[in-house]
Amino acid sequence: MLSASKIKLIQSLSKKKYRQKYNLFVVEGIKSIKEFSFSKFSIKSIYSTIPIPFLNENQYQIINFEDLKKISFLTTPHDALALLEIPSNNINSFKGIQLVLDEIQDPGNLGTIIRLADWYGIKQIICSKGTTDAYNPKAVQSAMGSLSRVNIVYTDIHGVLANSKIPVLGTDMKGENLYTTELPENFYILMGNEGNGVSKEIKSLCTQILTIPRFGSEQKAESLNVAMSTGIILSEFYSRIEKLK
Amino acid sequence: MLSASKIKLIQSLSKKKYRQKYNLFVVEGIKSIKEFSFSKFSIKSIYSTIPIPFLNENQYQIINFEDLKKISFLTTPHDALALLEIPSNNINSFKGIQLVLDEIQDPGNLGTIIRLADWYGIKQIICSKGTTDAYNPKAVQSAMGSLSRVNIVYTDIHGVLANSKIPVLGTDMKGENLYTTELPENFYILMGNEGNGVSKEIKSLCTQILTIPRFGSEQKAESLNVAMSTGIILSEFYSRIEKLK
Repeated sequence: MLSASKIKLIQSLSKKKYRQKYNLFVVEGIKSIKEFSFSKFSIKSIYSTIPIPFLNENQYQIINFEDLKKISFLTTPHDALALLEIPSNNINSFKGIQLVLDEIQDPGNLGTIIRLADWYGIKQIICSKGTTDAYNPKAVQSAMGSLSRVNIVYTDIHGVLANSKIPVLGTDMKGENLYTTELPENFYILMGNEGNGVSKEIKSLCTQILTIPRFGSEQKAESLNVAMSTGIILSEFYSRIEKLK
Repeated sequence: MLSASKIKLIQSLSKKKYRQKYNLFVVEGIKSIKEFSFSKFSIKSIYSTIPIPFLNENQYQIINFEDLKKISFLTTPHDALALLEIPSNNINSFKGIQLVLDEIQDPGNLGTIIRLADWYGIKQIICSKGTTDAYNPKAVQSAMGSLSRVNIVYTDIHGVLANSKIPVLGTDMKGENLYTTELPENFYILMGNEGNGVSKEIKSLCTQILTIPRFGSEQKAESLNVAMSTGIILSEFYSRIEKLK
């Protein structure tokens, strides 16, 4: 049985304001909880409607499905829900692609990009301060367990890019052909807001602009979703590395 | 002013049963309506809250926002909504990539794949009969105007692939490395169901199986979304063509 105050606290975590106040976020589903439990994240509480094989009985609390429905952010709740501490991440130094997001607004897009980064072994995503919160329940859900393995940092990206010693590659509709442009070994790749793309101020810091070319005679499709564009650009980069092996 | 029976008819088009009964589907937003009006699609009626610059006044009906809210499938309705006839499409013969979908269930994924096909100039998608309906409001919305330019055919894909004279490439988690495998000039590429992948019976018809390789030391990200995988595979194919130009 969950107390009313606990239920109210968990429900409040749908809002960034309360996630920041309590420094907590929600992960749903035993599979994702397992991935976080083998990460650097600190799990505060786990509530489950069924026994969890990889945990001791004192590590989680059994609740009934009615209570789970009250605290879940899903239309169809999974078996379990955990409260985790939001880590305070700093920028680490990595080689290869440095993924930078400029004001991505949709939590589903951010989650998909986190999953992509994890797929391609990218260990860090640097986000502008106005980028949607990675600990939003929709972003967490769409990232699946990948959020447990990628270092998400919110910072002043202008400062980071202005002081960059490696090339800064931007993306828009009128840049150089992604498929035929030589790519550096180490670089920042900058993905912009869903409606407006990379902001002007940030674009002025780019050493090069890339475009995913359209094919066919009509060329009428207006744009690709930002998560899809990120996937295509990462794929092109890693495809070239793989071919050189 | 819209009649109650007209409102009821349009609302019923959220269901495939009624779309098939009336042979109609809904397109929302002036931009998408414009793209369909320059296509082979037959537009039956257009309802708009504002004047439409590219149409004559007798080609659409002005309605108020209250009525638009009643017939729109969007949380935030756009300015206009149109009823279009569902075309009866046959398989055309094309060169290059032939995109085949086996039981894709999510309308958003299907719409994203239609948009991708349009971006890469692919003029046709062959869908198994159990694939989600491309005229579902969510699929139409997510495809944006691209549905007006891609020939979507629902058919017995087993029959199509069993009689194929070109290679049939399937996709799963244990196939050949997409990035280092030689790809034929003309081929079917088969994308499978979100949960189960390509069905066994259909997989037995594949001449080759491709996998998007994972990178990094941990390799823990479990899967990529089917629309993302489709985008990455199409990108790899067109990237190679572009590099040969």
